[in-house]
Amino acid sequence: MNHAFVAGTATTAFGRHPDKTLIDLAVEAGEMAISDSGLERSEIDAVYFGNFLGRGIDGQGVIASVVARRLGLGNVATTNVEGACGSAGIALRHGVLSVAAGAATAALCIGAEHMTRPGTEAITKLLTEAGEMSTDGAAGLTFPGFFGLVANAHAARYGSRREHLAAVIMQNRASAITNPNAMFREAVSADQIASGKLIADPLRLLDCSPISDGAAAAVVTDLAHTTGSRDGAVRVLACEQTSGPVGIRHMETLTSFPATVAAAQRAYKSASVGPRDVDVVELHDCFSITEVVNVGDLGFFPHGEAHLAIAEGLTTSSGPGVVVNPSGGLLGRGHPVGATGLAQVHEVVAQLRGTAANQVPGARVGMAHNLGGAGATATVTILGAA
Amino acid sequence: MNHAFVAGTATTAFGRHPDKTLIDLAVEAGEMAISDSGLERSEIDAVYFGNFLGRGIDGQGVIASVVARRLGLGNVATTNVEGACGSAGIALRHGVLSVAAGAATAALCIGAEHMTRPGTEAITKLLTEAGEMSTDGAAGLTFPGFFGLVANAHAARYGSRREHLAAVIMQNRASAITNPNAMFREAVSADQIASGKLIADPLRLLDCSPISDGAAAAVVTDLAHTTGSRDGAVRVLACEQTSGPVGIRHMETLTSFPATVAAAQRAYKSASVGPRDVDVVELHDCFSITEVVNVGDLGFFPHGEAHLAIAEGLTTSSGPGVVVNPSGGLLGRGHPVGATGLAQVHEVVAQLRGTAANQVPGARVGMAHNLGGAGATATVTILGAA
Repeated sequence: MNHAFVAGTATTAFGRHPDKTLIDLAVEAGEMAISDSGLERSEIDAVYFGNFLGRGIDGQGVIASVVARRLGLGNVATTNVEGACGSAGIALRHGVLSVAAGAATAALCIGAEHMTRPGTEAITKLLTEAGEMSTDGAAGLTFPGFFGLVANAHAARYGSRREHLAAVIMQNRASAITNPNAMFREAVSADQIASGKLIADPLRLLDCSPISDGAAAAVVTDLAHTTGSRDGAVRVLACEQTSGPVGIRHMETLTSFPATVAAAQRAYKSASVGPRDVDVVELHDCFSITEVVNVGDLGFFPHGEAHLAIAEGLTTSSGPGVVVNPSGGLLGRGHPVGATGLAQVHEVVAQLRGTAANQVPGARVGMAHNLGGAGATATVTILGAA
Repeated sequence: MNHAFVAGTATTAFGRHPDKTLIDLAVEAGEMAISDSGLERSEIDAVYFGNFLGRGIDGQGVIASVVARRLGLGNVATTNVEGACGSAGIALRHGVLSVAAGAATAALCIGAEHMTRPGTEAITKLLTEAGEMSTDGAAGLTFPGFFGLVANAHAARYGSRREHLAAVIMQNRASAITNPNAMFREAVSADQIASGKLIADPLRLLDCSPISDGAAAAVVTDLAHTTGSRDGAVRVLACEQTSGPVGIRHMETLTSFPATVAAAQRAYKSASVGPRDVDVVELHDCFSITEVVNVGDLGFFPHGEAHLAIAEGLTTSSGPGVVVNPSGGLLGRGHPVGATGLAQVHEVVAQLRGTAANQVPGARVGMAHNLGGAGATATVTILGAA
């Protein structure tokens, strides 16, 4: 089995791209990631494309083949993978598996989404496809609605309040200011958060990650092919993928995602590290409450303490422990859903190279956590400075 | 790197299933494949789900997670893969890669499609998503339309005629009579073929594979976990995946699919066999002309001779060479598009176990060839009797 490295990454600007298509964005990120990796185009022999909404919006299938053709990659293996908002993490993992199995010399993993065209109502409806359509979808449960339930359950069980959720938002929005590719680059105040439009009680507008366009990409290869990497390759210490219940009726709790817990446990074991060894994590804050749950599920703080630790600033760069979402996370960077998992990897790789805009000093071990749907899928990737 | 084996396979009946959903069919095939493999449910640690049209018809995302939950598989890694009509071949390949990389002990690969509900016009439109939507789709080119062009190009270049295409249809329909899961189990005459409704010149109704419902599955594992396999495990000698042009404007020829040629070349090399070593092949006869092209692309007969060889009976079980589509192929078995690649594997495994309904005597090496779109993706899998 070959050991896998991330030799190059890239992300487009996240935000609104009215003049570009989903495919344009994917090609743009792919070009930049190849360039960053230092590999020749002819060395790429697999393409994984993560996307969730493209079929519903544009109707184009076999997009990985369209993208590979646009990139001039010849008859490479092209695979479209879907795991809702966790699609890009799954794309990365299959690049890693291809290299590990010796089936690819170098895999180009791309995640992309173009969500701003259809409008909020249409997108909200399409996003319900990440939940169990025959029950939750049929009952009209939206994704903000689901995470509103999570926030209420968390408040009832652990006593989290508006000020804890506001801390998540303010921290991530503050971090995003330094990220040139972030959708939002302005700080927000507690007043702005509290006066935002109510979306799904108790979640208000700024508790919700935005509808965004964007793409991100990574080139995964073996050690022998990392020599041209612009700022150095990063070692994949673990890349684990799991699943969990899709519909609420199958969930034992609303305050933890079993897919995240299982993926984290396997990743820590596989990488032979623990939560205390992780210097920086990009985790899936699709809503403010999701960051709180994830910090618990990933083992950084016990459930019931995570919201307090965040509000105390223990997960920011001035704190003593792990730094959470220095890129701004989904709340600040934006959340083109199929792209997010690879945008996380782009940030973690920059942190381990020491080239991040919001650099965590001396970061040696980083994690990316990508969640699909209401915990239907999860990936946890642990990367180490080479 | 672990060597991969197919320990169990299954297929539902192909045809019309008005009382079942896509998920019902997938679960049914998955249950049967696990049972056939002799593995415990707890030994399955990855699920690959191949499907093309489900998002457009039912809108359910993360289906692999829904199916895994229904099968009681716990927090296994679940991945939805899409490569148009080649989706199931891609699902199989990723089961093989997972086992080869040591990431899975046993992978359940499922392909499924439920196509009969929306009606022919709606399905024909959804199927155009396998072509380049921005050009061919926008111009109104349907898939029968594309393969009509292929048939005309082949006739102009190699002189193939109605009687050659009719031979493909009559042979595959005759083979399907013995297949208990086939959609069509009646022979057809040259007169019936010639008097069929014109679909896309020169293709008539019986030149086209039918709109079908169905699912197929396979369990891929390592040697150590094959001991309970009901009729014996089969060795994966090669499992290669490629891509090719999606839109007509990028195709250098209409009488060959570069993705098939490349996948076959790599598979022969990887398995250390040649076309003459293959006893039986299930290949992607989505239209009668496609079988002719594939027989050439896979190297069984030179292009220009394939249609003559088929018409002479050289690819039937009474012929001296490779036996093509003993299951009835897509024309006879039916073509629930996302299921086809694994239905092919089910037949090839039965042939190598010596348990096929239409058994090729002494078959030792078998091939499955699954094509996506107009050659946008291809997989070629070579299996060997253990």
